Amino acid sequence: MHPHGATGPLVAALDIGGTKIAGALVDAQGRLLLRALRPTPPGGDGESVMAAVSEVLGELRAAPEWPSAVAVGIGSAGPVDAGRGTVSPVNVPGWRDFPLVPRVRASAEGLPVVLTGDGVAMTAAEHWQGAARGYDNALCMVVSTGVGGGLVLGGSLLSGPTGNAGHIGHISVDLDGDRCPCGSRGCVERIASGPNIARRAVEAGWRPAGGGAATAAAVAESARAGDPVAVASFDRAAQALAAGIAATATLVEIQVAVIGGGVSAAGPLLFDPLREHLKRYATLSFAAGVEVLPARLGTDAGLVGAAAAAAEALELFTLSPRLTA
Amino acid sequence: MHPHGATGPLVAALDIGGTKIAGALVDAQGRLLLRALRPTPPGGDGESVMAAVSEVLGELRAAPEWPSAVAVGIGSAGPVDAGRGTVSPVNVPGWRDFPLVPRVRASAEGLPVVLTGDGVAMTAAEHWQGAARGYDNALCMVVSTGVGGGLVLGGSLLSGPTGNAGHIGHISVDLDGDRCPCGSRGCVERIASGPNIARRAVEAGWRPAGGGAATAAAVAESARAGDPVAVASFDRAAQALAAGIAATATLVEIQVAVIGGGVSAAGPLLFDPLREHLKRYATLSFAAGVEVLPARLGTDAGLVGAAAAAAEALELFTLSPRLTA
Repeated sequence: MHPHGATGPLVAALDIGGTKIAGALVDAQGRLLLRALRPTPPGGDGESVMAAVSEVLGELRAAPEWPSAVAVGIGSAGPVDAGRGTVSPVNVPGWRDFPLVPRVRASAEGLPVVLTGDGVAMTAAEHWQGAARGYDNALCMVVSTGVGGGLVLGGSLLSGPTGNAGHIGHISVDLDGDRCPCGSRGCVERIASGPNIARRAVEAGWRPAGGGAATAAAVAESARAGDPVAVASFDRAAQALAAGIAATATLVEIQVAVIGGGVSAAGPLLFDPLREHLKRYATLSFAAGVEVLPARLGTDAGLVGAAAAAAEALELFTLSPRLTA
Repeated sequence: MHPHGATGPLVAALDIGGTKIAGALVDAQGRLLLRALRPTPPGGDGESVMAAVSEVLGELRAAPEWPSAVAVGIGSAGPVDAGRGTVSPVNVPGWRDFPLVPRVRASAEGLPVVLTGDGVAMTAAEHWQGAARGYDNALCMVVSTGVGGGLVLGGSLLSGPTGNAGHIGHISVDLDGDRCPCGSRGCVERIASGPNIARRAVEAGWRPAGGGAATAAAVAESARAGDPVAVASFDRAAQALAAGIAATATLVEIQVAVIGGGVSAAGPLLFDPLREHLKRYATLSFAAGVEVLPARLGTDAGLVGAAAAAAEALELFTLSPRLTA
């Protein structure tokens, strides 16, 4: 790894989710020099969650590399409001319009702090180091308990005015469809997320083999064994993802859609029907060529991406793989 | 208007559609100093259509202001391929991968030529001079025989790699819906265009008052007289437009959707239900505030926008209304 004392500029990255708060010092090559981790206090009030963030930051500040840190990058579960520096993560109930950026800035010796949504951060990571590398126009998605995403357009990360751009999970592809918890109908997430893959299979009579939990992974196992109901539930998820990807390609001309998250681990069971459906929905000449690739980065994508988004926003160092080689 | 001999830099603008080919010299304030117009030769081969373009260009070149022209901006019916400089307008059958940019460059004394799709051009015009002025993130749409559009993101026009970005008419909002001529299903255009508003009303038993033609304008007239089938057809169009606008706001964080074209002339009959449906589809905090406004520019939008897109791409002069006052 990176020898002590020889670092260039570093970004202190924070990845804040409903189950864990992770931190790292990230260098200009995207390497994680030091890690810190705390569980997100379940059901805690705002200050107890902030205390966990401060502990993670404290570990980073105590590291010998800290003096090289030039910024803090935060990727947070959303919605976020990058303009006001506040976050209201659906799965961190203690934080509603919580002033995360000023609080972190106060704990970080006045370094500049850049806040983005976790979908945008994941996209920054895949564009810098992963499957979207080398593409100037890309959609990156996480298909898991929910469906999130982010966009690279014209070679740059699209954050949007509030840091939430790329929320493909909540575009409607079925305007008369089932009600989504967000209030809309027929959202991509309502059809394609892991819990919805399992729900649809159960509603059609499927039961997990061996009496286990009714998860998307269990549906995938049954589908691989040939269960037609399980296969159909994955196919419907793939269809919704294809319609969403096609809509994105038609609206903003992406060249590639990168898909990560737990549901993408189903592999060909998801990707094969997705590519077939995509041919039917992405019909215009400029959209028809959109590629679909599995994500390359794993759980570190949030940290790498929070650093990348901060580096890009503050023009700290060049991320482009074509320039850094 | 603009006095002869006192012009700053001008852009020679061309607006190429299935029925007419228009040209103008446009100044840095968006004024049209000189106009030329030819009908698009119906069913003509590629060279006869190009001859009409050359005649329009010839009129512009003969003008005393021509020496001030620094670029040519073309807005063309799509699809276009801005990278290769070719166009394949659906409604100009004689042009398939027609090398419009090199041909125009050869006729325009080597001036730089910028090609964009007509939806992108209309958006450039509304952003510069019309209803999207002052918004850094906007969707502009034409709802007419078809449904087209374009995007402004982060204050800049989004052309996309091939000049076709913003094609909202062909995103699917009903993944199991009716087949669209583009090959997909449930496209916004398949539900919301003028001909589809009329088709749906006719299929439900509506007939035009006085035995006239079954057009969207006739449906609007019946709807204003209280015909419930006519009202329902406009409502369904409004619902599809709302789902498409909400998808765009959720994906790229637009602040305003500007709607022009013949169908938008229905006024409150379209805009009132559209705003109601939008509340149901644009649910996330950062998308919920999206405004809907009627377009301000009329048939000159194509020319003004072709000039604006060229000026922006070539950095010829500053278009921002906040700087030019």
